[in-house]
Amino acid sequence: MDFLIGIDIGGTNVVCGLTDASGKLLHKIKQPTEALRGSDYVFDKIKCMVDELLALGGIQREAVRAIGVGTPGFIDPDKGITLFAGNLRWTQVPTAEEIRKRTGIPTYIDNDVRMYVYGEAVCGAAQGYEHVLGITIGTGLAAAVINQGKLYYGGGYMAGELGHIIMPEIPYTCGCGMRGCLETAVSATGIARQAQELVQSGRPSILREWLEAAPDKSITAADVSKAYDQHDSLAIEVMNHTGMLLGKGLANAVTLYSPDVIVIGGGAALAGERLFAPMREQLQQSVYHGYWERLTIVTAAMIDDAGIVGSAMAAGNRAIQ
Amino acid sequence: MDFLIGIDIGGTNVVCGLTDASGKLLHKIKQPTEALRGSDYVFDKIKCMVDELLALGGIQREAVRAIGVGTPGFIDPDKGITLFAGNLRWTQVPTAEEIRKRTGIPTYIDNDVRMYVYGEAVCGAAQGYEHVLGITIGTGLAAAVINQGKLYYGGGYMAGELGHIIMPEIPYTCGCGMRGCLETAVSATGIARQAQELVQSGRPSILREWLEAAPDKSITAADVSKAYDQHDSLAIEVMNHTGMLLGKGLANAVTLYSPDVIVIGGGAALAGERLFAPMREQLQQSVYHGYWERLTIVTAAMIDDAGIVGSAMAAGNRAIQ
Repeated sequence: MDFLIGIDIGGTNVVCGLTDASGKLLHKIKQPTEALRGSDYVFDKIKCMVDELLALGGIQREAVRAIGVGTPGFIDPDKGITLFAGNLRWTQVPTAEEIRKRTGIPTYIDNDVRMYVYGEAVCGAAQGYEHVLGITIGTGLAAAVINQGKLYYGGGYMAGELGHIIMPEIPYTCGCGMRGCLETAVSATGIARQAQELVQSGRPSILREWLEAAPDKSITAADVSKAYDQHDSLAIEVMNHTGMLLGKGLANAVTLYSPDVIVIGGGAALAGERLFAPMREQLQQSVYHGYWERLTIVTAAMIDDAGIVGSAMAAGNRAIQ
Repeated sequence: MDFLIGIDIGGTNVVCGLTDASGKLLHKIKQPTEALRGSDYVFDKIKCMVDELLALGGIQREAVRAIGVGTPGFIDPDKGITLFAGNLRWTQVPTAEEIRKRTGIPTYIDNDVRMYVYGEAVCGAAQGYEHVLGITIGTGLAAAVINQGKLYYGGGYMAGELGHIIMPEIPYTCGCGMRGCLETAVSATGIARQAQELVQSGRPSILREWLEAAPDKSITAADVSKAYDQHDSLAIEVMNHTGMLLGKGLANAVTLYSPDVIVIGGGAALAGERLFAPMREQLQQSVYHGYWERLTIVTAAMIDDAGIVGSAMAAGNRAIQ
């Protein structure tokens, strides 16, 4: 039988999963990344995790067709190099070769968001659609596109940076050096920041009471959701504004990519309808009706597992070619 | 030897060209479309034009591998149907089959702008680039994308509608039913309309003098270029504003598609640096520097012939498959 391994190297955790050839997740293990100890330390840890997965599955190394790895940042999937991953502090790391050397299994890498969206397209909520636009709303806002079943990379593998579309309504400076990038407002960080600013401006809100009760804490996106559910007008305004901005950004992406389906994942997607209702309203207003009528919008189905399953399945395909 | 025929069915003219297998244009003929006489009339005319091309080339019908046809509007290239072409007044016309029946040559159709951009990518100014974003600025604003040598269609073959990205700065209602579409300002029509409005608002301009000298005429984009060259401040303002808007629109497209090259064609592209200088300035400000640094911007090299050469070459490829 034919097995695959998918690995997601995040800023906080490394997650490794063993799947069958259809992407069914059989075993999953998680370890802290400890990226600051250097890439060799992380790769040695991954070697041990792969051995553990083989033991858990009761299978030989030879039964694993390929390892797929998703890492954040800019990736060269053809050369197998992590070009730059800010939150791992990795530059020009030959990730695929280092893992292949340690495990003896053919290894392929790609960007973690692309792998997440690929997982949702192959085994998750976007299954069965030819043209998929997937976004993840977490610390930042990222996107990936699948066109007729194939990932769309663009020049320099840099396509899909929805989070760095500039919006005139957004006043914040972005880590990328520009001002007004969509992800500075549409993200967990962005939601928290907007709420924080409105509270500081003196607006009444239950969030102020929570802050005063725990002055060493700062407002999170989850707090804003909680306040929203208590009909807090400030929290409602922040969610409406964020959803509206996301709708405008997605309108650009829909008009240019013409996806059949948009799949939305990531931690901040937990805000759910608080964010999605104003998003849909704005999106419908901002795209030609022909796009809207044929568009499906779904939330990610696999949540935590989309990345490792996507990595495993993408690597499986690349190993065959 | 192997020949191809490319046909561009426009609102005004039908242009047919005979090329060799490499896309070299050998003969070209042009006739008025007379679309109002109905699609059968146009197809009969095209049959005669194809016969004329065969005679001009001194070749047998059997030497032509395929005919490629570009038509405006929404196309189903797989089924060979022109779904809707407003300026031909065609709905659900089986263009490919009708031309194949009359000529006896395998026929493939596609959207005219995609074929124009494909021509520039295969034989023109964007030759040698893997990821091409092509735009045509004419009566409207249209775009097409080539990704790793292949046309990007998206769901419903509707990708690339750059002209229907909404900009908050644009107050005009668009033919598509939305308000603020980029092409309502960034097009020959849009440039003329902006100039006309400013003149009517009472602003001094040489354009007013020209209008008063020929009151039955209205301002054209070419007039605005001419006034610009005479240092007319109103014309300079219109070109700067239009170029700025185009730069903002392209920034979205670059961030989402990550092209290696942008190729710009269409009649209004004759405005040249008057439009491209402010466009480049805005684009550089509105995209992550990593995109800007690897981006090339060129003007179309084949002008009138890109569409027929692109149609011929695309059909040649499809006939092989």
